[in-house]
Parts: sequence; C-alpha cells; structure tokens
Amino acid sequence: MGARAAVAGASGYAGGELLRLLLGHPEIEIGALTAGASAGTTLGEHQPHLPELAGRVLLDTTPEALAGHDLVFLALPHGQSAAVAESIGDSALVVDCGADFRLADPAAWAEFYGGEHAGTWPYGLPELPGQREVLRGARRIAVPGCYPTAVTLALFPAFAAGLAAPEVVVVAASGTSGAGRAPKPHLLGSEVMGSVSAYGVGGVHRHTPEMEQNLSAVAGAPVSVSFTPTLAPMSRGILATCTAPALPGVTAAAVREAYEAAVAGEPFLRLLPEGRWPATAMTYGANTAVLQVALDERARRIVAVIAIDNLTKGTAGGAIQSANLALGLPETLGLPVNGVAP
Amino acid sequence: MGARAAVAGASGYAGGELLRLLLGHPEIEIGALTAGASAGTTLGEHQPHLPELAGRVLLDTTPEALAGHDLVFLALPHGQSAAVAESIGDSALVVDCGADFRLADPAAWAEFYGGEHAGTWPYGLPELPGQREVLRGARRIAVPGCYPTAVTLALFPAFAAGLAAPEVVVVAASGTSGAGRAPKPHLLGSEVMGSVSAYGVGGVHRHTPEMEQNLSAVAGAPVSVSFTPTLAPMSRGILATCTAPALPGVTAAAVREAYEAAVAGEPFLRLLPEGRWPATAMTYGANTAVLQVALDERARRIVAVIAIDNLTKGTAGGAIQSANLALGLPETLGLPVNGVAP
Amino acid sequence: MGARAAVAGASGYAGGELLRLLLGHPEIEIGALTAGASAGTTLGEHQPHLPELAGRVLLDTTPEALAGHDLVFLALPHGQSAAVAESIGDSALVVDCGADFRLADPAAWAEFYGGEHAGTWPYGLPELPGQREVLRGARRIAVPGCYPTAVTLALFPAFAAGLAAPEVVVVAASGTSGAGRAPKPHLLGSEVMGSVSAYGVGGVHRHTPEMEQNLSAVAGAPVSVSFTPTLAPMSRGILATCTAPALPGVTAAAVREAYEAAVAGEPFLRLLPEGRWPATAMTYGANTAVLQVALDERARRIVAVIAIDNLTKGTAGGAIQSANLALGLPETLGLPVNGVAP
Amino acid sequence: MGARAAVAGASGYAGGELLRLLLGHPEIEIGALTAGASAGTTLGEHQPHLPELAGRVLLDTTPEALAGHDLVFLALPHGQSAAVAESIGDSALVVDCGADFRLADPAAWAEFYGGEHAGTWPYGLPELPGQREVLRGARRIAVPGCYPTAVTLALFPAFAAGLAAPEVVVVAASGTSGAGRAPKPHLLGSEVMGSVSAYGVGGVHRHTPEMEQNLSAVAGAPVSVSFTPTLAPMSRGILATCTAPALPGVTAAAVREAYEAAVAGEPFLRLLPEGRWPATAMTYGANTAVLQVALDERARRIVAVIAIDNLTKGTAGGAIQSANLALGLPETLGLPVNGVAP
Repeated sequence: MGARAAVAGASGYAGGELLRLLLGHPEIEIGALTAGASAGTTLGEHQPHLPELAGRVLLDTTPEALAGHDLVFLALPHGQSAAVAESIGDSALVVDCGADFRLADPAAWAEFYGGEHAGTWPYGLPELPGQREVLRGARRIAVPGCYPTAVTLALFPAFAAGLAAPEVVVVAASGTSGAGRAPKPHLLGSEVMGSVSAYGVGGVHRHTPEMEQNLSAVAGAPVSVSFTPTLAPMSRGILATCTAPALPGVTAAAVREAYEAAVAGEPFLRLLPEGRWPATAMTYGANTAVLQVALDERARRIVAVIAIDNLTKGTAGGAIQSANLALGLPETLGLPVNGVAP
Repeated sequence: MGARAAVAGASGYAGGELLRLLLGHPEIEIGALTAGASAGTTLGEHQPHLPELAGRVLLDTTPEALAGHDLVFLALPHGQSAAVAESIGDSALVVDCGADFRLADPAAWAEFYGGEHAGTWPYGLPELPGQREVLRGARRIAVPGCYPTAVTLALFPAFAAGLAAPEVVVVAASGTSGAGRAPKPHLLGSEVMGSVSAYGVGGVHRHTPEMEQNLSAVAGAPVSVSFTPTLAPMSRGILATCTAPALPGVTAAAVREAYEAAVAGEPFLRLLPEGRWPATAMTYGANTAVLQVALDERARRIVAVIAIDNLTKGTAGGAIQSANLALGLPETLGLPVNGVAP
Repeated sequence: MGARAAVAGASGYAGGELLRLLLGHPEIEIGALTAGASAGTTLGEHQPHLPELAGRVLLDTTPEALAGHDLVFLALPHGQSAAVAESIGDSALVVDCGADFRLADPAAWAEFYGGEHAGTWPYGLPELPGQREVLRGARRIAVPGCYPTAVTLALFPAFAAGLAAPEVVVVAASGTSGAGRAPKPHLLGSEVMGSVSAYGVGGVHRHTPEMEQNLSAVAGAPVSVSFTPTLAPMSRGILATCTAPALPGVTAAAVREAYEAAVAGEPFLRLLPEGRWPATAMTYGANTAVLQVALDERARRIVAVIAIDNLTKGTAGGAIQSANLALGLPETLGLPVNGVAP
Repeated sequence: MGARAAVAGASGYAGGELLRLLLGHPEIEIGALTAGASAGTTLGEHQPHLPELAGRVLLDTTPEALAGHDLVFLALPHGQSAAVAESIGDSALVVDCGADFRLADPAAWAEFYGGEHAGTWPYGLPELPGQREVLRGARRIAVPGCYPTAVTLALFPAFAAGLAAPEVVVVAASGTSGAGRAPKPHLLGSEVMGSVSAYGVGGVHRHTPEMEQNLSAVAGAPVSVSFTPTLAPMSRGILATCTAPALPGVTAAAVREAYEAAVAGEPFLRLLPEGRWPATAMTYGANTAVLQVALDERARRIVAVIAIDNLTKGTAGGAIQSANLALGLPETLGLPVNGVAP
C-alpha cells in the first residue's frame, strides 16, 4: 500500500462514499476516521452498507487525529475546512470536498458565501484543458461542487471549440443526497418521494460563480450562467440540461465533432451514440459522466445533457481521481467505470 | 344532473383521471365507457382505484357507443380523434385530450406530427387572455398538451406585460404517467425508479410548436422555445423551469407585479409567497397550477417555475374546466383546488 | 353547515389530511387550527397542497383556542391528548387520533406505552360488529391506530366466522408518513428511497396490544399477534399480510363466503374479485380498505391481505367516519371512496 | 486470467448483473454474450451502465456461441436452460440462474412448474451446512431463487440449532427487478411507484417448495412454509420477515447464540448488533446478506429479518460465489462485500 488516508467527516454521505471507494483502492489504506457530533460512535451506525469498517470508532476531528497520514480527505460542512487544513503540514496531500477553496475571485466568494475568502487551491477537475498538469504533484486540491462538475463537463467542449455564445442556461435535477444528511423537514422521505421541486432559483445558488469561473476560463471570455437546481425523488444522481446559443454558422456536425474530440481518451467521459440520451441510472455508483449533445436548429441553441452520480464523479470519485494524479498514481486507480443498474 | 358524458379511452391514465373527477362532478353523469383492445373487460381491471365504477363493462369505441350523450371526452392515442369525432353530431360537446386539433398551423403539424392536419378546435386553456369567451358555448374543444399547459401558464404573464424577450428556454420534469400506459421497456419501474433521464432533446418534442403558438399569441410576435423534457421517478406531476431574457430596464418588482396581476381572480393559478418554490406534491390530484417567479439579475433572465399535475390540470382537469365553460356551468365545478399530500 | 370543527395539530400529516377531507365535507366547517412549535405561522407554510387555507394562522393549542367548537379533532403527539381533552366540555365531540384512549387494559398500556393509563374512549372502527351503536351519539372517540385498522379489518371476518385459530402472524409495510413529520435521520428521503427496512420487530410495536384487543373481542377468546412492521419507500399506504391457522375442515369456499358476508353493505370495505390482489395505490387518498383472502391449503393458513391509506382510512378518514356517526350524519359524508391513481 | 465465461441472456437484469460483477473479477474473462430477441444488437443498448462492454454484439443463444468456454452462465427464461445445457460438454462449468434444476422432488416440480422435471443439479447456496463440499469441483450448479436464498439464510440457523417448530410464515418484499425486464403493465413505473402490492398469495408462488426443501434438509424433518411475496417500489432488494414458532423453553439468548454461531466465519452473512434492523439499502449491489433475529416472547415466535440484493446475493453474486468454489478459486473473489448507499 502506498498511501495512508484519513477521512474527516466520515459519518456523512460524502464521507461514506469516499470510504466505499477507498475500500476498493489498491494503493490507499484507510487510516483515521473522524466526525463531529458522532465522534465516539462506530462507523457501522452511520454507514451500515460498509461492513468491512463497521467496528471502526470515529474520532474527533482534531489535528492529532489527522496527523501522520499521507493524505487527508475533508468532507466537512462548509466553512470548516480552512481551519482543519491549516494544521496539516505541506508534506501531506489535503483534498477538500467542501467549497472553501474552489473560487478564485474573492468578490464572488463574498457575494455567494459571505465572510472572508479562505484562498484558492488547485481545482480538481482533471478533464479541464491543462488541469492534469496542475494537479500532478499538488499538495492541496479543491474538489469541484457536484453541479459545477456536471455543467462544466457538459459545456466545456462547446466553448473550447468556439461554438457557443456565452449566455448559458442550465436546469439540473439532483438526488437528495446532494443536500446532505442533516435531517431537515423538506428532505423527509414523505416530502420528496413522488415530487420534484425547485430551490435556489434566480441566480442565487452558490455553485453558480463556480460554473462561470470554469466556463469563462475555457471560453477565454466571461460566460454568464442562469442556473436553476431542482430536487428529484432519488437518492443519487444529477441530470443537467445545459444550453447555450449556437454561434452563427455552427452546424450539428460541428457540434458532434467537438464533443467527440473532447471525450477522446478521457477515461470517465462517455458520449452516447446519437439518438440516445443520458439517464442518471447509467452512472449509479460510477465515476463516469454520460453525455449527449444536440443542436436545436429552430431555437439555434446547443443542448448538452449530462448524467453523473453526485456522490461519485460529483464528489468522492472526483476527489480520488485528482488525488491519484497528485500522488503520481494512475488516474483511474480504484474508480469504477461501470455503474450499478437497474 | 345536467349532462351525460361518454369517455372514449377509459382504460388509460387520462381516461381514469377523467372518471375520477367526473365521479365528483355534481352536474355531469357518466355514460358509456369505451376502449380499444380492452373492450369487453370491466373497468375494475384497469382502474382499481375507482370502486364505484368497477363493474362497468368497456364498450368498443364506435359511433353507436358514443351516440346519445351530451358530452364526449376523447382520451385516445394520437391520430384517432378525428375519425371518432366526425361521427358525433354538432349538438354534442366533444372534448379531445389528444393532439389532433391543437395546432393552428398546418406546417407545424406536418413538421412535428406528420401527415395531414385534421383541423383546429377552440383551445382549452381558459387562463389565456380572451380564451374564456372562445370556450363559452363551444361544441369542440382541443385540450392543451400537459407540457404546453405548464409552460404557457408559467410565461404568459411575462409576455402579456411586455417584460420578456422572445427566446425562451424550458426544461421540464414529468412523471411517468405522461408517457401513457402502453408497456415499454424504458417505462418499467426498474428503469425509472431512482433515475432522471432526458428524451426528445434538441427541439424535436411535439409539444414545442404548441408552446410557441401560445406564447407568440400572447406576445403578439414570434416566440421561439428551446424545450427539453425529462422523465422523473414519480407517477404524476410536471415541474417546468421556464426562462426568458428580461428586457432592458425590467425590475424584479415589475416582474412580481405582472405575475400578481395575472393570477388575480384566477381560480386555479396560485402564485406562492416570495421565497418559496413550487413542488409537484403541492398539486397532486388538484387542478391547481402553483407558480413562482424570480428575476436573475446576474444573467438578466426571468425564471418562472410552475408545478402542475399532468393528469389533472395538464389533461383531465383542464378538459373538465373547459367543458364547464362550454356547457354554461361554473368553471370550477367538480374540480379540486386542494391536492393530496404528502 | 351543521358543525364547526377545530383541529389541534394542524401542521402535521394527520392534521393536514383532516383538513383536506374537511374542506370537502358538506356539513362540517373548519374553525380554529392550532399547533405546537409552529403556532404563529400560516398553514400555507406547512400544508402547501391546501391553498384554500393557506392564509390561516395557527394558534397555540390552548383551551381558549379550542373552545366554542362543536367538534375537536386532536392530532397531537402521543401523551398530549388527555390534558387537552380535559378542558373541552362534554357538549363537544372530541375525536382523538392519538393512542391515549385506545386500550382498555391498563396493564397493556403500562407495558407498551409506560406511565399511567388515561382511560378508554369509544373505539372508532365502525366496521367492528356492534360498534356503530357505540359510536352513535358518542362525545369522545379514540381513533384506531393505522396498523390496527388494517389488521382488524383484514382478519375480523375470519374470527367472526370461527374459521381461524388464534395465533396470528402479521407483516405490514407502511409508507413513511406513518412515522410523522418530525425530521429524523432514518426518515430522510436519501435513506428511505430504494429501501425497505424493518423496525419494532419481536412483538414490541405499540400497536400490537390494540390488534390483540380487537381480534380477541371478535373471537370471544384471546388472540395473540406476532406483528412485524416495515417501512416502504412511499409516502402513504399500508399493505398488511395477515395470516392465521385455518381450523380443521375449513375450506376455501367457507373462507370466501365469510369475507363476502363481512363486506356486504360496508361502504368502505372492498373485497376484490378472486385472483386479484390489493395494492396500496388502489386506496391513495381514499377511505376505502381493499381486501383479498386465500386459503393456503399446503400450510393450512388463512392469508388475508389488505391495503389502506394510512392517513385516510388509517387516521383522518376513519376519524371523520366515526365523527359522522357521533354527529348523527350519514356515515360516508365527505369521505372519498375512490382513490387517486396512478 | 484463469477462466473464460459466456453469459447467455446478457440483455436481461440477471445477465447485466453477472456482467457487472464479472468485469471486476480478476480470474474470469468475459467471452461470448448471447440473447434471444436482442441478438444482433450491442450490449450498450441494453446495459448502458456498463460502458466497458458497450460495443459488444449479442449473439444468438446457440451451442456454437457457447462452445469453447470454461464456464457458461445461463440467465434464461424459465424452461430454456435444460436444452441449452445439454449442448455444453461436461468439461465446462454450467451455472444456471433459472429454476430448472433447483428442485429434487419431481412431484413438487410438477405441482408448481408443470411439465417434466429436467433434473437436479448441485444447489448453489454455499452457506448451507455441508454444501461447500458439494460445490467444490462441481460441473453443474443450480443457483437458488432469490426468495429462497433470503428465507433459507434467515432461518437455517434456527432449524440447525433445533430451536424452531416447522410451521414457517414468511412475508417478503421484493424490488421490481425480480420480476424481470419483459414489459408488463403492472410493472410500469407509474403503477409501482408509491405502491406496495401483493401477488402469488396463498401458497402458490413457485419458490415455496424450494424453501421447504432447504429448510427441511436442515431440520431433518418436513418444514412447511406459508409464503407471501409483495412488490415494493424499488428496483433492487429483498426484505424477508421469516417467523417460526419457538420450541418450548427456547430463550432469546439461545436464539442469539445460534445465529452468532451460524454467521461466524461466513464471508457474506452479517448479523447486526442487537437493536438494529436490516434495510435493503445496506446490501445494494453487494453480495452480503444482513440479518437480525428476535424472540417475540408474547407470541412465542422467532422472527428473523434478512435483507439481500436480489440481483447480487439473490442471483448473480450467488452464482459467482458458487462458481468460484467449483473452479477452485477463493470463494469471495470478485464479489463486493460493501454496498452502494445512500
């Protein structure tokens, strides 16, 4: 075993998914598991689907608990990562699944999150042009948000190829695990089963500036995103419908070609054959993003649809993919390409 | 009892919902029930949730079976309504839940449905400006499609008030009952549970020209719609996210005011208090459309979100609402405003 | 309008269902709505599916708020009903949806609920032999638990006809609304979707002595019940599989005959045609119980399966049915026989 | 790679799960994939969650297609296995996921399946006492049915320890994938979502004699099973509640001890800590069976509850577990112990 990893926030959904994947990773050994209010309990009470770790006791999330690891995954509530990360020396790789270090622009941070900006870490989306070089050997990684992962992967081919105008409209459906494990009335099964609902409408969702940051970097010019998230009656999965105006003269063939080029050689991007469309079930438990794209000739918009598992490619799988690069391991190590269905 | 109604297509989902509502309608009596392949069986085998009609035998859909009624509801597969309607004299009211008579433009019909255009009937969406006058006393009614019902109700206030530019982008999630009752592999429970999927992407869904027709009429100028439907793991309900660019100078207050004015006095339109967002569960089994709207100041788009029950307001309830007008009855008779939740 | 009703506990699921049904009741007017922690908010924040009452403000549950009504429904957490009921004079009808007054045996109360037994009120299950006479004119009614409603209705025909031995085994699946609206981690959508789980196994569920009480009364001798509840991924509905050994010589025909006799004339009991089996979807939002029965000739057990809506027939609908009797109204007034499906 | 495996019936749910697991198996290589009506199409059209095999073309299920493999998995509709198996020489291992070779008693076959009994193969449930010896080196394996897998694993400890009387009552909830992929109206998402239903009630389900066969063998005396299956709104999973009368004098401690002894050393059996109960979500995609047991002191019944994934431990995982034994490989090779949750 090469590296020993601690997981801070092991009792939540992101933490559970990190552990599920790490249990199958041939080069990473699981070290300390920490939690907040659940410290002192066993992991089996929180992650009963992981019998191999059922007896492990959760420690408090302290510098001592996290010390002595080659690798620390942070799956903490927003705003807690910076303090924890500070105590971890630069010799260890720290991979933060939270939002604290994703944004480069302090003004965007202030507008959407409030308070002081903690800083900016290398952004853990290896599929972005040039990003693998940034991640190789990195000691700090900011894992992208689940929605920005989906939206960026769906539209970067169009912007990289210069096919789209910068007025993006995105509507995405997410499973409820994206809202976390803290019990809230609107997340009760009785409320979410049989119902799709909207939230964070009108440009106020915190993932919006992250999408704009990514797409603007690819486009080389400011891209605006109108983003509407919705909650769907499923535990996992994001299906994002991402549209942008096609520039004059752009053809369906050019769009197809750009997407085929963009996914070529990418181990976790899959463009479906023409005429077939993504479903989140295709990606359940997998680190794969399934894409399709069309040119709406009437409305002259490029419509890209993407499915990911919000906990795998959208969080824990993406985190491990970037960690593999940082550790000098094969990028795909320990990451399932195939999903669980039906 | 004033009127006696036949229901053609009583074994399907739209037919079942018509019967559920008609059973609670104080001025409409249920007459003949007809079906295609299920003729000769009892309704109880197909609609076991309607014990009051369990013993009723389904007749073949013939002119004889439908004759002698004041009112005939057609809930037939696409393309079958015209032939059936022809046999029904003008003294009876015919309400078609199918697509055959919704479009005014034969070219749009040819492009999206193919074949010859059957004609155009009065369009059964009473909330459209001026439409109640059209429907009062009508003898033929084309019930709108479920998606066009949702999208038109969500955006007509913005276009009626001159607030929006005509480049509309809509992404909608529908429950599976919208796809009907014919068994197809992709509609199996094993496939749809736990999964959101896209279909009919790229401007090819047949409801697209109907949306454009409605919104263009309100705007007084051509409106284009980029429409993407998705299938969500629920039996009923549509949540449509409908966006259009805000015209220069439009303010959030102006948008709110336009929507408040549009729903004022409307028995089945409900604008939520600010800060709250629609969920399809709010409308389960009800003829109510629940709306909310915001102005995305960053992206300068009006974002209207609407929830309806696709089988009630989106099909059978809308049909009865228009039929009430045509028959000279109170518009709301027999139609539930309150839903069933959780 | 004959009677004016207060609803204590209007923000919960039972309270919401009471209000949904009362809105359609022609002889009961809705008076005060009260709540605990939600007092001071509007009903629309808690029951957004009931637009007709959206603006009503919730009062504190005090004697003053509940005074001056002909009828008070209590939908309160376990143990709170007795104190509230005391303040309500005998001229008003009090219908308690909680457990406080269901059990006749103080020892059973002490074993399963603990603490002092509050007393015993007329038991609100009109279908039990002789029970309608008890309920007519009653001023206090204890609404049965949802599981005991299902199990008693499923097996009383067998015991009334003397066909079954008294060792009952029941396994029931319930929708999550039966567990209430207080947010708990195991009731989160992420946990319950896609999963069936057991709980309260081994004879410890509080509804067990209530089932035994009811069936023993019908049998005229002690009946023991081995009861296992499970939680299913749906908001509403109970499907209970209820089995008892068939006495020697009992035939399938005798069993069928007993059940046909038991449901004859019962407005809310429906025995399916032979060969068809209940589904909870048949009863969604309806006060109907759907039954089927078979004799397992190999194992010599009577197997009765019943579906009800736990919030309707299992709580609020059952409460109104009994209240109708107590108020001298037609038993079925305001209660839907037909469900909402699919 | 040691062995090369063909999968007959690769387009169905059992076939898909076999392939998902085989893709992660270090000693089995995937050879020919065959199908019935889907022959000639690619696997990607049927199993879009398995991108690594998306381009593989499905062959007709013929002797030629299956020849030349070390190992053939049959995931065929009931009744087709015998003919296919005949063409496969004894040098290859044939693992049949169908029912054809499960029953030892031709009379039970005739009663429940009809027609001529094809024969009896070594029964693929390694956890049964003595069964590992039978399976080591076997050339033919009959994979148990999904329900019998669950019920046998839940109750064999009680019968092996002589604690239970032989009158078993079982009620089990299954996800819809257990009903297969052929589109039928009652399996539509619109029908199954939000609904639990019963079927095959009264001792007529074909898995009943298989349960009796297994438990009788363990008990050394005839055991009767009253079995009621139900369909739950989830794609995967079985939760079976299995009860039997406790023999006089049996204590809760004795029951616990028997179950602890039975699971000791078993790689895929997990007895939960006392007070916790199985949920199917704990086993999603895993080959693990999660158990709990209680003694109902009032009703004097042993109540064992078990959760499995019907497609993994209940079909494909169980098949590979037995195949590992037959091939002389470690029993657990390629089989996930941990599930995917939430």
